[in-house]
Amino acid sequence: MKKNLLSDVQEKLLMGPGPSCVHPSVYEALSRPTIGHLDPDFIAIMDEIKTMLRRVLKTENNLTIPISGTGSAGMETCFVNLIEQGDAVLILTNGVFGKRMEDVAGRLGANVDAIEFAWGTPVVPEDVKKKLDARTYKIVAIVHAETSTGVLNPVAEVGTLLKGSESLYLVDSVTSLGGMDVSADEWGADVLYSGTQKCLSCPPGLSPVTFSDRAVEMLRKRKSKVPNWYLDLTLLTQYWDGAARVYHHTAPINMLYGLYQALYLILEEGPENVYARHKENHEKLISGLEELGLKMLVETSCRLPMLNSVCIPEGVNDADVRKRLLNEYRIEIGAGLGELAGKIWRIGLMGHTARPENVNRLLSMLSEIIRR
Amino acid sequence: MKKNLLSDVQEKLLMGPGPSCVHPSVYEALSRPTIGHLDPDFIAIMDEIKTMLRRVLKTENNLTIPISGTGSAGMETCFVNLIEQGDAVLILTNGVFGKRMEDVAGRLGANVDAIEFAWGTPVVPEDVKKKLDARTYKIVAIVHAETSTGVLNPVAEVGTLLKGSESLYLVDSVTSLGGMDVSADEWGADVLYSGTQKCLSCPPGLSPVTFSDRAVEMLRKRKSKVPNWYLDLTLLTQYWDGAARVYHHTAPINMLYGLYQALYLILEEGPENVYARHKENHEKLISGLEELGLKMLVETSCRLPMLNSVCIPEGVNDADVRKRLLNEYRIEIGAGLGELAGKIWRIGLMGHTARPENVNRLLSMLSEIIRR
Repeated sequence: MKKNLLSDVQEKLLMGPGPSCVHPSVYEALSRPTIGHLDPDFIAIMDEIKTMLRRVLKTENNLTIPISGTGSAGMETCFVNLIEQGDAVLILTNGVFGKRMEDVAGRLGANVDAIEFAWGTPVVPEDVKKKLDARTYKIVAIVHAETSTGVLNPVAEVGTLLKGSESLYLVDSVTSLGGMDVSADEWGADVLYSGTQKCLSCPPGLSPVTFSDRAVEMLRKRKSKVPNWYLDLTLLTQYWDGAARVYHHTAPINMLYGLYQALYLILEEGPENVYARHKENHEKLISGLEELGLKMLVETSCRLPMLNSVCIPEGVNDADVRKRLLNEYRIEIGAGLGELAGKIWRIGLMGHTARPENVNRLLSMLSEIIRR
Repeated sequence: MKKNLLSDVQEKLLMGPGPSCVHPSVYEALSRPTIGHLDPDFIAIMDEIKTMLRRVLKTENNLTIPISGTGSAGMETCFVNLIEQGDAVLILTNGVFGKRMEDVAGRLGANVDAIEFAWGTPVVPEDVKKKLDARTYKIVAIVHAETSTGVLNPVAEVGTLLKGSESLYLVDSVTSLGGMDVSADEWGADVLYSGTQKCLSCPPGLSPVTFSDRAVEMLRKRKSKVPNWYLDLTLLTQYWDGAARVYHHTAPINMLYGLYQALYLILEEGPENVYARHKENHEKLISGLEELGLKMLVETSCRLPMLNSVCIPEGVNDADVRKRLLNEYRIEIGAGLGELAGKIWRIGLMGHTARPENVNRLLSMLSEIIRR
């Protein structure tokens, strides 16, 4: 046998766009004994996961469950359960994940309309209003925290525009959940998905999803079957809800242990304290970067605390800096994506990563590399 | 805070239809430090997973990767990448998983034809031949090991019927892989999927999939985009293959560590030895069950070694026996599914579970319960 590569895996400081650093107790949770997906002990854990998810999402939605796939599976779930051929969908795009929504919805046969805002700037509610006045959409979709640019979008404001309308409001909170306030019900979000590997600080593999009663009603009224058996929420809820617990697919038991523990930690620390910790470390990072003469891509008013986009200074080799940080200092930061590739670094302060000692370590290593 | 339920999770002897018992080194692997999905150290692990998968699948197929979802996501992947509106698909059904294939393919717009064989009996190649003589199918699909009944289907024989034809041969090896010989190339399987929580003895969460060059060619020639962004293999292979490693979704890092270790263990023990161990323990179980006066559902010639269907004797309460095994003895066995609910128990001997001490423990507890 060849050498086992797992013994070489070393802990790294994950300061990219996710995965983030994982708390030791979440690693422990992952390696708790596997039990059956219909075992009453496991069902108790599932129920508690739903309850804890509702608390961090600030929602009363009954349909609040983790999907057995990563964040993009959550995106797929939200669109595939609601879209039927030709449905009008409006996507508010200002980065890679808005573009991804357009692709996902288009493949499902939606009639996709998009407003594209400059990358690095937020969605402008006035522009959205004009679009809404001109046409009725079944779904209006937005990304709360655009991971590709570091921009915070005005999710509550757009939600206000939609109140009283027929449209379903679909929100991507992959990067924001667990790192800043997410108020699904207050925003009027009908459909919302997230991921585990960002501010929930659990390894990648699951995607929390919530549907309002209105969205569930729309799902029930479909004319055609959901064209995706694996992600069909009418089947999934028969396993996640009620007395019968009808077998659908074998749930990813150990990953769900990990999510349980990650949610438990956030509620134990107190969500508001967790968000304050993200904000403090973000501010510390920004002032340190500015001291190094680096500039941020995004204006102060709409910067994400957990994803910081730094403009790469002229004359500095993007890949070289990232490689040296990773190989010499075991720190991972993220590259730019799409049209921002080569132009920015993305520095994550997500979940367990968002601590002053990590900010200090990165700043000191970065200063060494840039000054050399 | 409420009590943390994870501390109550106790090890159980998993003798149901999966998940199966997990080797301690796989639990350790799951809790190795999370690193980035584009980290060169992780890419080395991905490459080695592909190589090991090819060995246990006995295939040279370049496109051999684990999908970021459970076995049913593997089924979805195989169908959604190949089916376009109206494509003729033949499904050979003799249990729940054949029926599931019909549902999955139908939702994707396929023109589904099925031959249904009695549950508990195998697919009959002569009947398949008649169907193939009458019509041309784009895909012919079969389940190698039907987990709902314990029947082994004649996958090689059906493969022979298809040799030289235009049809793609699609095989479900969720339950068989790692517990008995799977020879993808020799069978002429163009498309094959599996799961991690059966004889690979890794917790649920991933689904190995392999596509022959012919199937990849068919995928490339599609007229329409794959109507599922998350499972689109043309995108997934850009991350799993080649020099560029284009980001698609954030791979489930720690689950992939688990799969790496599970495959490593099988190759270390030697696949043939692993299969022999399954067969020996299966025979030991059968003779023990027969000594207790119990009857098997499936005839000797087509019994699966890893999934044993036992007819529930008259006068014995199905749910009661399973509950007592679980609560008093911490042993899980499976219930019947679909039309076999209440009629059979499904006793799994999968992967790490397939050991004589486990067979002995179950037999002794079962005898105590039944005789009381």
